[in-house]
Amino acid sequence: MRSTLLALSIASTLAAGFLAASPAQAGEGMWVPQQLPEIAGPLEKAGLKLTAEQLSDLTGDPMGAVVALGGCTASFVSPQGLVVTNHHCAYGAIQLNSTAEKNLIKDGFNAPTPADELSAGPNARIYVLDEITDVTAQARAALAAAGSDALKRAEALEAFEKAQVAGCEAGGGYRCQLFSFAGGNTYRLFKNLEIKDVRLAYAPPGSVGKFGGDVDNWMWPRHTGDFSFYRAYVGKDGKPAAFSRDNVPYQPRHFLKFADQPLGAGDFVMVAGYPGRTNRYALVTEFENTAQWTYPTIARHYENMIALVDKAGQQNPDIRVKYASTMAGWNNTSKNYEGQLVGFQRIDALGQKRAEEAAVLAWLKKQGTQGKAGLQAHAELVKLAGQARTTQARDLVIAQLNRNGVLSAATTLYRLSLERAKPDAQRQGGYQERDLPQIEGAMKQMERRYVPAMDRQLQAYWLKEYAGLPANQHLPAMDQWLGGDVDAAVARLDGTRLGNTDERLKWLKADRAAFEASDDPAIRYAVAVMPALLAMETQEKIQKGEQLKYRPVFLQALADYKKSQGEFVYPDANLSLRITFGNVKGYAPKDGVEYTPFTTLEGVVAKETGAEPFDSPKALLEAVKAKRYAGLEDKRLGSVPVDFLSDLDITGGNSGSPVMDAHGRLVGLAFDGNWESVSSNWVFDPAMTRMISVDSRYLEWIMREVAPAPQLIKELGLQH
Amino acid sequence: MRSTLLALSIASTLAAGFLAASPAQAGEGMWVPQQLPEIAGPLEKAGLKLTAEQLSDLTGDPMGAVVALGGCTASFVSPQGLVVTNHHCAYGAIQLNSTAEKNLIKDGFNAPTPADELSAGPNARIYVLDEITDVTAQARAALAAAGSDALKRAEALEAFEKAQVAGCEAGGGYRCQLFSFAGGNTYRLFKNLEIKDVRLAYAPPGSVGKFGGDVDNWMWPRHTGDFSFYRAYVGKDGKPAAFSRDNVPYQPRHFLKFADQPLGAGDFVMVAGYPGRTNRYALVTEFENTAQWTYPTIARHYENMIALVDKAGQQNPDIRVKYASTMAGWNNTSKNYEGQLVGFQRIDALGQKRAEEAAVLAWLKKQGTQGKAGLQAHAELVKLAGQARTTQARDLVIAQLNRNGVLSAATTLYRLSLERAKPDAQRQGGYQERDLPQIEGAMKQMERRYVPAMDRQLQAYWLKEYAGLPANQHLPAMDQWLGGDVDAAVARLDGTRLGNTDERLKWLKADRAAFEASDDPAIRYAVAVMPALLAMETQEKIQKGEQLKYRPVFLQALADYKKSQGEFVYPDANLSLRITFGNVKGYAPKDGVEYTPFTTLEGVVAKETGAEPFDSPKALLEAVKAKRYAGLEDKRLGSVPVDFLSDLDITGGNSGSPVMDAHGRLVGLAFDGNWESVSSNWVFDPAMTRMISVDSRYLEWIMREVAPAPQLIKELGLQH
Repeated sequence: MRSTLLALSIASTLAAGFLAASPAQAGEGMWVPQQLPEIAGPLEKAGLKLTAEQLSDLTGDPMGAVVALGGCTASFVSPQGLVVTNHHCAYGAIQLNSTAEKNLIKDGFNAPTPADELSAGPNARIYVLDEITDVTAQARAALAAAGSDALKRAEALEAFEKAQVAGCEAGGGYRCQLFSFAGGNTYRLFKNLEIKDVRLAYAPPGSVGKFGGDVDNWMWPRHTGDFSFYRAYVGKDGKPAAFSRDNVPYQPRHFLKFADQPLGAGDFVMVAGYPGRTNRYALVTEFENTAQWTYPTIARHYENMIALVDKAGQQNPDIRVKYASTMAGWNNTSKNYEGQLVGFQRIDALGQKRAEEAAVLAWLKKQGTQGKAGLQAHAELVKLAGQARTTQARDLVIAQLNRNGVLSAATTLYRLSLERAKPDAQRQGGYQERDLPQIEGAMKQMERRYVPAMDRQLQAYWLKEYAGLPANQHLPAMDQWLGGDVDAAVARLDGTRLGNTDERLKWLKADRAAFEASDDPAIRYAVAVMPALLAMETQEKIQKGEQLKYRPVFLQALADYKKSQGEFVYPDANLSLRITFGNVKGYAPKDGVEYTPFTTLEGVVAKETGAEPFDSPKALLEAVKAKRYAGLEDKRLGSVPVDFLSDLDITGGNSGSPVMDAHGRLVGLAFDGNWESVSSNWVFDPAMTRMISVDSRYLEWIMREVAPAPQLIKELGLQH
Repeated sequence: MRSTLLALSIASTLAAGFLAASPAQAGEGMWVPQQLPEIAGPLEKAGLKLTAEQLSDLTGDPMGAVVALGGCTASFVSPQGLVVTNHHCAYGAIQLNSTAEKNLIKDGFNAPTPADELSAGPNARIYVLDEITDVTAQARAALAAAGSDALKRAEALEAFEKAQVAGCEAGGGYRCQLFSFAGGNTYRLFKNLEIKDVRLAYAPPGSVGKFGGDVDNWMWPRHTGDFSFYRAYVGKDGKPAAFSRDNVPYQPRHFLKFADQPLGAGDFVMVAGYPGRTNRYALVTEFENTAQWTYPTIARHYENMIALVDKAGQQNPDIRVKYASTMAGWNNTSKNYEGQLVGFQRIDALGQKRAEEAAVLAWLKKQGTQGKAGLQAHAELVKLAGQARTTQARDLVIAQLNRNGVLSAATTLYRLSLERAKPDAQRQGGYQERDLPQIEGAMKQMERRYVPAMDRQLQAYWLKEYAGLPANQHLPAMDQWLGGDVDAAVARLDGTRLGNTDERLKWLKADRAAFEASDDPAIRYAVAVMPALLAMETQEKIQKGEQLKYRPVFLQALADYKKSQGEFVYPDANLSLRITFGNVKGYAPKDGVEYTPFTTLEGVVAKETGAEPFDSPKALLEAVKAKRYAGLEDKRLGSVPVDFLSDLDITGGNSGSPVMDAHGRLVGLAFDGNWESVSSNWVFDPAMTRMISVDSRYLEWIMREVAPAPQLIKELGLQH
């Protein structure tokens, strides 16, 4: 379960790997599947030809084909476990399999037979939804039993979550998650088959898959072929198993078929996926702090780190390769935040928020006694937000410091030793037995994303930031360890052996005493500061416990208000499955300019510069020049469509989501939002919010004319 | 008369002051007035409600209202001699009247009464067309009498031109020009009333008149309020007279009325104006040299000079102010050339030219004996182009060196003394009695555009360029003067007294002997290099004489070919009056993007940054925010239009041209072409070529809401 609505936890959620898009939609709404019957009218009006009931069967056709990757969305597209998602969602796997000699990032990859497919790494997962259970009553009972003490309430919810998840996962092969909706008004337990043997089947050349790179990121017109194929494997018994050559392709209950009708402007489209986080119901004060402090601050730090890595990478190609993915994340986030800030200005988001909150409060006052609880909850939440702000600068620095390289490894490993001393059910979430494979995977994978010289620079950066904090935000344990000398501390850390993978894996099994006896400087750091980190965590839990008292009450009041105004209400995104729908549609980004909803092959060629990120494969340039459209041209466009715009409501985590037409057929993959839409995470702007998808006809065209994969064309049933 | 088609004379034409737009049109064609009956069909089809006959009456309504400013176009808009043109056409006059204390460039200007109007300077002119006479037969007779010697033919045409002009101007008060069409197939003598007392009546603040500045130059979407008002004055006898407070407003025979129907997308529009130069009938070899040498070379030099002045201007605000207009010209030209080069690539202009020329030559071959003259003329012109290229690098450097500051003054003044020793009719064009006021004006005005330190830097720049020329392009006289030391030469020139206006005016009257006895270093330079300059001029005349033999023959052959293909043929632009027509229309600049034909007030505000060139007046921002549209909003746009696109065929010199609707009413002023259209000067691209105009409703709105001029609103008959 993830907490909602606090700016700091946004930072940590994003750090968990949200490199994806962030918009919302003209047909606003990230509907939970349970709501589909309720919005059957609007769905039909928008053009859906299936029934809302058919859609709401999450293990049926087509929804049963939609899967989560953890941070991204994907879908089955063949009976043999073939999965399509974005190139940027498979980027880690592509990078993991790349070497200087065999650069899959640059050249792409096509496994001629399944036997040639490459492991996406020990941490790669495909989650296939099996069941959703409403456990709201049980959660409320657990909270009620904890009484009014905030820490106890937070711990009670944690314990409840662990118990629910443990019970759900007891049979093995499943991964379960408890999701809180609307600040804790509803709790639902999601049970997913956890496929652990994920293999890369196909990736286009990087000059297709990330065409436009950071220059085009969030931009329209767009010409990115942002797609790749995975294949899901399970043991011979049909159950999830770790990578093994003996495993067999997973046979999904359902898979999506490519559309047989050409998609055009105005057509109905829908997306099912796992949007990570929106904050549409945040308080004015929370929104204000995000716009005025959190976003500008994080964006500045990320830009500073980008500059550091850029500079170091000019001298050292190893740094360039190993920090590519980290850099992409920083770049994306800082650009996103800056876009949101521009958007807030454009739509006067603060003014809109203020007006809406004022209307809610006025309405509650008018309800008399019935409105009192909501008003009180609002007042308490405002207080809590003020408290959180007093330590936010420190909380950010400490979180970032412990996120990089050896310090991250040291604090994670030592914490694991502390938690492992407890019975499994009492351990902190993230350190239970069920989490060990993820931790081990991360420890292994670190060698691909770590260069000691760069890691030291990042340590120095954050330690200097720490040293510069106001005195009242300093942590005594940290000060003592630092000894007032950042350079000396960084030099000391240089002696760590945790840069070595075998060493990290060894410490995975070590007990607390071994850590506390170690002379490894990174472990010494972890041991020294851990009490302070744990105290911060307790403080955070107390805040969460307080939130649990008031947030559900206020959000219920807000929902009551909205319903009184005749509005449909959907909960903020929380990484759980959502459906959004609307139509293929351009927009007017500014006075005198209109963006049309489709781009075409000729637009790819028009952007060609011969240099990254606009260096299309020669085969592509020649095929377009010769107008070899492979029968995929759209008559209305006179060419093959590449990317398209629609007014759907998506956000980070939706990347890779299948875009389906009115009949539930695959017409594309969502991969980005437009620059103007990113602010819709907080305040929805119907005029400018657009989803950017790659057209399924472009996928097929690339696999026919540019980086041929005849075996996939056949498997996808696309022969003609 | 100006020669056509040679790239080098383009450079000199541009230097004569073409700071204006450069496009062409989907309804391609810069029609001479005599052709209007011929194209009555297409005019009516496009939507004209007047008859072609009515249009072709150049001294009638509406064409009688259109006037030339020399480098720009304008039109009478009141019975009291009020003239409207672009802000950038009146920029020199605005600058001339600006001081540090009273900055009209920044603040704009509004004369509450005619008595408050400001002189636009001694060189400002308004030319009112009186009569056009075809003198082709006489010109041909003069050329025939000269025989086959090239120099004699060139001199014969010069003598003919001077005689024609002298005869035409004999009565006084008129300015006459001989124009050659289609390389010399037709000669027409234009007689214009020459109004010499031109006054500035109104200019909007610079943040309206040049909103967007160089950033938006050639760009769409555009929001520039590029308009200003002059008033024409004449002596009490109704005849042209130099500036005098006793003069009275000129009463034009006709003036344009503002449109009473709102202009919309698709509507018919037409423009009458004085386009400077197109090269649509250039040979492939001439085009190729322009694209590969002339444009890249001049653009590079201008950018270098811009960098020099920019740097110097940072230290010295005097340089910033005095070189502002010169810089604008360089900027505009280099940006134009670069745009043309990009456009040539986009439309494969060279490929198109080659295909067309090959088709013409093939057609001529098929004509047998009748085609021979055309084929031979083509071969000779190819040879001449090759000859011109051998000295083009030197010709460019020498021309540029003598274009700046004191060296320009010295060579002009000394040349004048040489010419004045001859009878008027035998003097070089530009140095006759009729030209003296222009020369005197230029000598006076130099003080406004000259700073010694900057002038020295520009001298050094071009002298170094000269020193770097290949040995075979050096001029002995120049080498001797230079003495192999650029720095010493520049230091020597520093002693000149020609930076002083009185000194320059004194030399206006001096004879040759006085120059040759002078110790002023700039005059010493002029005396030393003049023989070489005159030799270059003779060489150029010989080339012109050769051109006169072959160009008309080949262009006639080309016209015959085009007519055989069913095409209407119009001559290249040559600064004479042309009519072009078409429709209000946007375009698609690239895949996924469409430009809509109108911008609106809200777009001005959206560009606001608070800093030049996007710093609108506070009054404008407030009026837009309050939606004070003054009744001028267009219902289709929901706001007041600012600028608009149409597919008309214009080029530099058309700036300020009145845009008229189907009834001949004023709907706007042409002021620019779009970036994608500039290449149409050579090869017309109907898909991308658009004219950018400021909407007459924006003029009115500015004069009502932003920089009020109620007296002009009244004079223009716009009360409501």
